[in-house]
Amino acid sequence: MASQPARGTRDFLPDDVRKREHVTSIIRRVYESHGFEALETPCFERLETLLGKYGEEGDQLLFKVLLRGQPLVSGIRQAAELLERSGTVVHGRSGETAPAAEQRLSDLGLRYDLTVPLARVVAAHQGKLPAVFKRYQIQPVWRADTPGKGRFREFYQCDVDVIGSSSLLVEAEVASAACECMQRLGFASFRVRLNHRLLLKAVMQRAGIAAHQQLAAITALDKLDKIGLPGVEKELLARGIESASCTRLLEIVGESASMVTMREQLSGSDLGRQALSDVDRVLELAALTPAARHLEFDVSLARGLGYYTGCIFEIAVPDLAGSLGAGGRYDGLIGMFLGKDMPACGISLGLERILVVMQERGMFPAAMAHADVVLSATHEDDLGAALVLSQKLRSAGLRVDLRPKATKPGPLRKYADARGVVSAVWFERGQADHLKIWRKERGVLGGDLSPEALLTELIRPNQAPSG
Amino acid sequence: MASQPARGTRDFLPDDVRKREHVTSIIRRVYESHGFEALETPCFERLETLLGKYGEEGDQLLFKVLLRGQPLVSGIRQAAELLERSGTVVHGRSGETAPAAEQRLSDLGLRYDLTVPLARVVAAHQGKLPAVFKRYQIQPVWRADTPGKGRFREFYQCDVDVIGSSSLLVEAEVASAACECMQRLGFASFRVRLNHRLLLKAVMQRAGIAAHQQLAAITALDKLDKIGLPGVEKELLARGIESASCTRLLEIVGESASMVTMREQLSGSDLGRQALSDVDRVLELAALTPAARHLEFDVSLARGLGYYTGCIFEIAVPDLAGSLGAGGRYDGLIGMFLGKDMPACGISLGLERILVVMQERGMFPAAMAHADVVLSATHEDDLGAALVLSQKLRSAGLRVDLRPKATKPGPLRKYADARGVVSAVWFERGQADHLKIWRKERGVLGGDLSPEALLTELIRPNQAPSG
Repeated sequence: MASQPARGTRDFLPDDVRKREHVTSIIRRVYESHGFEALETPCFERLETLLGKYGEEGDQLLFKVLLRGQPLVSGIRQAAELLERSGTVVHGRSGETAPAAEQRLSDLGLRYDLTVPLARVVAAHQGKLPAVFKRYQIQPVWRADTPGKGRFREFYQCDVDVIGSSSLLVEAEVASAACECMQRLGFASFRVRLNHRLLLKAVMQRAGIAAHQQLAAITALDKLDKIGLPGVEKELLARGIESASCTRLLEIVGESASMVTMREQLSGSDLGRQALSDVDRVLELAALTPAARHLEFDVSLARGLGYYTGCIFEIAVPDLAGSLGAGGRYDGLIGMFLGKDMPACGISLGLERILVVMQERGMFPAAMAHADVVLSATHEDDLGAALVLSQKLRSAGLRVDLRPKATKPGPLRKYADARGVVSAVWFERGQADHLKIWRKERGVLGGDLSPEALLTELIRPNQAPSG
Repeated sequence: MASQPARGTRDFLPDDVRKREHVTSIIRRVYESHGFEALETPCFERLETLLGKYGEEGDQLLFKVLLRGQPLVSGIRQAAELLERSGTVVHGRSGETAPAAEQRLSDLGLRYDLTVPLARVVAAHQGKLPAVFKRYQIQPVWRADTPGKGRFREFYQCDVDVIGSSSLLVEAEVASAACECMQRLGFASFRVRLNHRLLLKAVMQRAGIAAHQQLAAITALDKLDKIGLPGVEKELLARGIESASCTRLLEIVGESASMVTMREQLSGSDLGRQALSDVDRVLELAALTPAARHLEFDVSLARGLGYYTGCIFEIAVPDLAGSLGAGGRYDGLIGMFLGKDMPACGISLGLERILVVMQERGMFPAAMAHADVVLSATHEDDLGAALVLSQKLRSAGLRVDLRPKATKPGPLRKYADARGVVSAVWFERGQADHLKIWRKERGVLGGDLSPEALLTELIRPNQAPSG
């Protein structure tokens, strides 16, 4: 029987889990200190909840759950007919048949992000939630993408959102919370790029780009970081945008673009003035928080997703392509479930990328052993005495790895050392009141200790004796 | 757009998450204090990893993930042909066609329990795991069961297992860890029923029940708790077991069955003597742990699952049918993946049932508010000052729910009170150094406080003034 996990997924062994927990517990604590509350949603949703929310490509990347029982039997018949009727097998992004066939065979899909489930929850539980709902959610999502370096089919997102308020304090607070997470994780020189969807729109208008071409232009602009101004120009032209508009757009968003030049360029646009005033206010409030020095206006930030309506964010660290987190205001999405508009704004931190960077840069604390002490009897007759001793140590708050078989001191110390545990305790046959102890930095200590003296010794910091 | 979660699943709103976290964090802490290490496995597994491990019924209850791309197109064709060839639609537990068709359409299945993934992990990562691997795992599992009261399609298990040791200290330690969890959760009068698979086998032999009927007899016996001796007798006869054997069996396991009577009855059976000696030793060791007074031998405990090979456990509380947890030794399962036998023993606590019982019996701590203090400016101009103040309070370790809009004191206090938050802080326009505070038990305190005085006040326990 093959023993590998499914393609694109990973087993998290204890060392991995400790690192993941280190990160998520910091994020959780920061979010909770800001009064955000945890939400958890089911791993699968009704397929109709998910379809049509992430674009055509997103629909294709959903993991779909097979129907069960009689509906499956009917579904197979209908799906086969659909394939037959289409004559040739049509599948993939451009095809029509396969998506239709899939929907005959599936009623559920695995969660693709944490935002659509949030929107559904707000609609489903409206009466039970506060009018302004500050929630965080740290859960896995699944995408049937081609796995690659750092790209998985199961990965965690850490989302923080405020639902129900259009105050710009919300933008400042989610940016502040995200920045505090980054700082507490040990990141120093990261930046949070800030832009505004309406500002982008005003810029497009000013450059003379037609409404139906604006999304294409934004998508091209989003790559400025990676391909530079000439690359963006090439892409704009390829997307059918007029040469004069391209030139104009690149003048506006050129590398020297600042709030000052923006203000000049957009002084005639109501949209532009409103967006700039929003950005000003967010920067002003954020300057009072941990986001100060990190939040920077960047007119070239576009973010691919179509649903943003106001400020947009992206978190980047030096020497790393791509982002560690992103977000923005999306005042329209919740309305798809609720039937009426509801303001919303949030940021999502990508756990897997944060972990990769922290691993590469050695940002995890050194001491992440599974136990504070390993303990064993040296003779089978004394397993009971070892069990009793293990409880005494646990009552004092220590994590005690009691070995299930009697073990000689040598192998026990070797096991402790190999596992990064700094203390090992054992006793000779029938001598549970005369304990031997080994400590990483001090070796086997002389003399036999009573259980009480042992506790005192174990709670002492693990240091080489001075002098 | 319908906003309900998928059938048989639940949204966990913040109050729910806090209760779930209260329970899982206690379980986690107890497991870690015993040196158990966290493992996490992917939510889906290759279908072949899961199929054939849980019996025919289990295979039917697996959620299966639809194939993607070209393999799906071929799969639909093949599945339709299979249906066609079978002439009539055959489906369900007795059918053959549907399972075969399902396997043409699916390559992945959602995790059904935490034990099979553990077995796979031990085989996949053998070299990286310690020879004796003490692991815990708290994750959701999915079963396509008919949802009902307290029965869900997505639910959490909290497993603790020791892999790689046949020492009976393992049985004592997992029982001890489970009992300590129960005690720390606030359960006092629970019991852990203990039996041994080989003892059951010896009893069956002594009663003259043929090998091929023993599993049926064990399944009937497992219901003693619910249907009593006459019920079990009826069921045994219905399952085709001879009347004389029934009588004999019920004599042996009758309500007065104790270790003493067992010992007499099975004195002639090697199997029986070995099993009794194991049970003796486990009881002896467990008597030294938190499992003392809870662990009780019970010859009628059978446990349905086929894979147990030694001691078996089940945790029950008074006035509740069914169990809150169960487990045992299963020395054969890991070998299905590893290719060689590997001893294993563990207990699984059922989170959902524990939560239901704790809810019904009012066992949650009273104070589980989302924040320690709610905070607001009374005027929009002061949002920045409120933001700065919120950070001061956070630095002191408080969870601060800063409201995004300026709010009048009345509504702010009302909001705090409604949400169970015991403190509310606000200030008049431009007066961020003259803070007003309301505390649940004391009302609005007189005088304006400086931020420093506020902190002193907030850290003080929330009590009505004495005298």
